[in-house]
Amino acid sequence: MTSKQKINPLIAIIDTTFSRFNMGNAALQELAAFDVRTVRVTVPGIKDLAVECKRQLDDGADIAMALGMVGGAKIDRQCAHEASLGIQMAKMATSKHIIEVFVHENEARNENELSALFDDRTRKHARNAARMLLEPQWFTNRAGLGLRQGRDDVGGLSENQNVNKKRSQTK
Amino acid sequence: MTSKQKINPLIAIIDTTFSRFNMGNAALQELAAFDVRTVRVTVPGIKDLAVECKRQLDDGADIAMALGMVGGAKIDRQCAHEASLGIQMAKMATSKHIIEVFVHENEARNENELSALFDDRTRKHARNAARMLLEPQWFTNRAGLGLRQGRDDVGGLSENQNVNKKRSQTK
Amino acid sequence: MTSKQKINPLIAIIDTTFSRFNMGNAALQELAAFDVRTVRVTVPGIKDLAVECKRQLDDGADIAMALGMVGGAKIDRQCAHEASLGIQMAKMATSKHIIEVFVHENEARNENELSALFDDRTRKHARNAARMLLEPQWFTNRAGLGLRQGRDDVGGLSENQNVNKKRSQTK
Amino acid sequence: MTSKQKINPLIAIIDTTFSRFNMGNAALQELAAFDVRTVRVTVPGIKDLAVECKRQLDDGADIAMALGMVGGAKIDRQCAHEASLGIQMAKMATSKHIIEVFVHENEARNENELSALFDDRTRKHARNAARMLLEPQWFTNRAGLGLRQGRDDVGGLSENQNVNKKRSQTK
Amino acid sequence: MTSKQKINPLIAIIDTTFSRFNMGNAALQELAAFDVRTVRVTVPGIKDLAVECKRQLDDGADIAMALGMVGGAKIDRQCAHEASLGIQMAKMATSKHIIEVFVHENEARNENELSALFDDRTRKHARNAARMLLEPQWFTNRAGLGLRQGRDDVGGLSENQNVNKKRSQTK
Repeated sequence: MTSKQKINPLIAIIDTTFSRFNMGNAALQELAAFDVRTVRVTVPGIKDLAVECKRQLDDGADIAMALGMVGGAKIDRQCAHEASLGIQMAKMATSKHIIEVFVHENEARNENELSALFDDRTRKHARNAARMLLEPQWFTNRAGLGLRQGRDDVGGLSENQNVNKKRSQTK
Repeated sequence: MTSKQKINPLIAIIDTTFSRFNMGNAALQELAAFDVRTVRVTVPGIKDLAVECKRQLDDGADIAMALGMVGGAKIDRQCAHEASLGIQMAKMATSKHIIEVFVHENEARNENELSALFDDRTRKHARNAARMLLEPQWFTNRAGLGLRQGRDDVGGLSENQNVNKKRSQTK
Repeated sequence: MTSKQKINPLIAIIDTTFSRFNMGNAALQELAAFDVRTVRVTVPGIKDLAVECKRQLDDGADIAMALGMVGGAKIDRQCAHEASLGIQMAKMATSKHIIEVFVHENEARNENELSALFDDRTRKHARNAARMLLEPQWFTNRAGLGLRQGRDDVGGLSENQNVNKKRSQTK
Repeated sequence: MTSKQKINPLIAIIDTTFSRFNMGNAALQELAAFDVRTVRVTVPGIKDLAVECKRQLDDGADIAMALGMVGGAKIDRQCAHEASLGIQMAKMATSKHIIEVFVHENEARNENELSALFDDRTRKHARNAARMLLEPQWFTNRAGLGLRQGRDDVGGLSENQNVNKKRSQTK
Repeated sequence: MTSKQKINPLIAIIDTTFSRFNMGNAALQELAAFDVRTVRVTVPGIKDLAVECKRQLDDGADIAMALGMVGGAKIDRQCAHEASLGIQMAKMATSKHIIEVFVHENEARNENELSALFDDRTRKHARNAARMLLEPQWFTNRAGLGLRQGRDDVGGLSENQNVNKKRSQTK
């Protein structure tokens, strides 16, 4: 993490009032440790995230985080799908990354677990957002290692090394 | 709610003849209490909403409301999905918010409940549309509080505060 | 219906050889009673409708009708979904309305019913297309009344009026 | 079929190595009888078709054929869906027709039937591609007649004529 | 494989930390045998692939490889669908090919098989990416032969030749 650049890069944090966890706060707290500037906007629900990300990226943000909760009903999952496709469109329109952080309400067994999941996933993704701007090589150094956000990392397959060696000359 | 600005922002209200509830009227009534101007266009069905929103946003509206009813058959849900994706496209093309207010005909147990649901959801979303233009901080002040439109708010998770404190230094 | 304007608006009628009903003819017959000009192009199937609508709208048509039949197999419904999304894309690219008139082959119990459904839905949508250009207020006057094409209108919810009155001041 | 025009229109034939049938050859053989020029490019799989069609259409082709086989697994059908949406995007970007010719591996009961289906569907679509450029009225003359590619035509509904006559004045 | 051109074409390799196999390394090793230059970027997950491909293609890459693993849960398959549609959008925006290499975590029976599948599919697709730039005729020479990546080739249908001959004059 360097602090040499004159102007720190800008990360837009977009979250929702629909969510049951203050994801924006968690992201802001986590990003305080990085040499980045932040701007935060809260919108009603997940379908509103994509265009607000686009607006902030058009206005100068270098990367955006789209933070949202997905309800447990079938229609909620369809909304999440539509929201995600909107986010893909916003990335195309801006040529910038948008880190999508969605937590499904039924991913956890109880409210305590759900809070912890919200918090862990949001913070790990926030660190990723900062690293993509400040230290992109961090990711290449960990390619294929099964990193996860909101859960424990699953690790890389043990066979990688052997297979790579064995096959690296074949064509 | 201020009235200092010379020209009040313009909200486009787009609704349908397919709907069984006059959603546009409910939105207009609700917005009468805000310092906003309104324009209203009615189209046949939900798939016609996206492009009419785009037309009005291109013509100067600052935000649009896409008001529609989704029928109870499987094909109706697919139409709603297509309509929603069209609305995401329209947001991308205009870089403006479109508040999507869809009521599913089978969300309520009887016509009375359905009418009340239509009315409540449309009015709450109308207030949101006005606040996004006039008072955007309103949403950040309520981030993560589980706000709902058409139903009672579900509230934020009780663990938020503890988790945030406990983890705010971890990296 | 006025005839004051120098040049009548142009409606593009796009239909298919895949359909088992001559939808284009039905639309043209119906539109003969309106002060509109028409152009008609027939393409092989429903996935070809969107780009032909775009071509005609780019060439000066004010509105397009996309007329197609959807077969009864699961793959046919997926094709209809893709065709519909293409139509949403074409609307975005042209900022003009495209009236999508799809009849599903299995919506009716026999061929007589199916023919009648094709005919009724196409003609009602054709009238809508003309009214959107000539008399847009017609739709606002009927907002929320549950209008249908290809079936009887279902009507508005009886509670509309009461609910509207009762809640119009609440915020 | 005329041969008056100075420069014959150009049809781009795009097919795949994934397919188990040489669809490009079938299309080229069929188009040899028409006053068209052809260009052929083969790509690995169906998801690669859309952008190659766009490249050829951008480079001067007047129409493209996207020829592909869809495997029998569920994931293959999802790939076909994504490929089709890409093709809709390519049509929008070029304002030109792309004839999508997809054969599902499980549409036939055995390899002989499957070969015949591949061949028939590809050739009929190739003729359609040529006619769309050379003789567009051919399609309007056959609107609503239930034409099929890869199967026998199903024919128009017998009621067409009666219904049309009976209802042509109603509004 | 020629090495006559002054500047070798550039292939962008984009992979993820989510994957359990170092797909980027496998691709780089395989491409070392070709007259191509490479650039590699690693992103967190599959939804981040499309925009990074677009960024690299906008910056001068001639083709991109989008390398990712799809988890075994239903939500993972939806994410893969969204990622694929983003990749289709990126192709349209750049008019360049993106080779999508997705491995589903549940495609293999154990970790050894999964590693071998990752390795084989990535390397075969890497060779395809190079050939599309250096030797495009390679694919046309193998059209319809049922080539596969990550599995054995399935071969062309034995009837091809007969059917082609038998029907080549029919119209």
